Amino acid sequence: MNQVTGAPGTSRPGGRTARVREAVLRAAGDALVDKGIGGVDLAEVARRAEVGKTTVYRRWGTVPGLVADMLAEMAESSLPRARTGALDTDLAALAGLILKTLADARQGPLFRAIIAAAASDAQTAAALHRFYRVRIEEWAPCVNEAVARGDVPEGTDAAEVVRALSAPLYYRFLVSGDPLDAGVAERAAVAASAAARAGVYA
Amino acid sequence: MNQVTGAPGTSRPGGRTARVREAVLRAAGDALVDKGIGGVDLAEVARRAEVGKTTVYRRWGTVPGLVADMLAEMAESSLPRARTGALDTDLAALAGLILKTLADARQGPLFRAIIAAAASDAQTAAALHRFYRVRIEEWAPCVNEAVARGDVPEGTDAAEVVRALSAPLYYRFLVSGDPLDAGVAERAAVAASAAARAGVYA
Repeated sequence: MNQVTGAPGTSRPGGRTARVREAVLRAAGDALVDKGIGGVDLAEVARRAEVGKTTVYRRWGTVPGLVADMLAEMAESSLPRARTGALDTDLAALAGLILKTLADARQGPLFRAIIAAAASDAQTAAALHRFYRVRIEEWAPCVNEAVARGDVPEGTDAAEVVRALSAPLYYRFLVSGDPLDAGVAERAAVAASAAARAGVYA
Repeated sequence: MNQVTGAPGTSRPGGRTARVREAVLRAAGDALVDKGIGGVDLAEVARRAEVGKTTVYRRWGTVPGLVADMLAEMAESSLPRARTGALDTDLAALAGLILKTLADARQGPLFRAIIAAAASDAQTAAALHRFYRVRIEEWAPCVNEAVARGDVPEGTDAAEVVRALSAPLYYRFLVSGDPLDAGVAERAAVAASAAARAGVYA
């Protein structure tokens, strides 16, 4: 099919649209990281992405529309969950992934800016909550598998275990400002596992 | 002494300064709740507080200066920690207090706006971190007392237990958007206690 075999530069159905989306979301991300949500301007994003201004206005409409699509794209391209065969190592992998994201020179400021923007914009908040719902659902089976193995009590709320593991990392990142490091991530995983085994989330 | 016995309306040492501060911080809080950090204007705060503009500029200087003083005032006037004599009930009291604050019609939006502002302003971030450092230090002795009673292992990091308890509430409030209720607060307290007893924070 043309979509698959078309030579580089060939106009493929979906190809150009996907490239425009990638360029626009990258430029919007750059602006968010550099200037925060208040500094994102659709015309400037179009210029930096080398895309027509009308394309950006027609397709994304507003800055919250652009941020919502950025979060949708992040959810689509996020790594799949770990499958290590044991709860503790699965949770350690998730904690490590969250740490890596929040400590990343680009992803960290990007999430910080988007979460801040969600405080004053309902569309951004809805997109943010959708992003985390997708991520929590992706990882919840790690806990369900542990229930099936008999490592964690029947009826454990798998999503709540994933939230419990994530929370200490985000708390430091957004609220208390205490440093984030591998020790913090490891402790978050061990604490969530200990509480889950103790039946706190059942 | 005059500070104590002066009739209402009497000019007491510190009295007028304290009243000006209270009026200005209240007006600034109103503006933050109504319009977010971008909508706070020192001249407008002065007008709403019925205080001279030059007083506000001289004393607080900038919006981040005003927000920093708001957080300092919140730390000064925060409730003292619980002293129920048992770790679980002390932690339940703290979780209930955090829930009450975040779910409060004024305090919730105020914290949300300040935390968002901290994402893009270093002075606000420093003041926010200071506020939580004070609160965490206020509650940490609940854990140290549990260590002394032998309920929790020696060497447990008391501040980390307080952070662990706080984190799930803030995670829902700021990140995932999942609802906050008494069940969530109770589970946060039970989870922190279970992990602390299991030696996760030692």
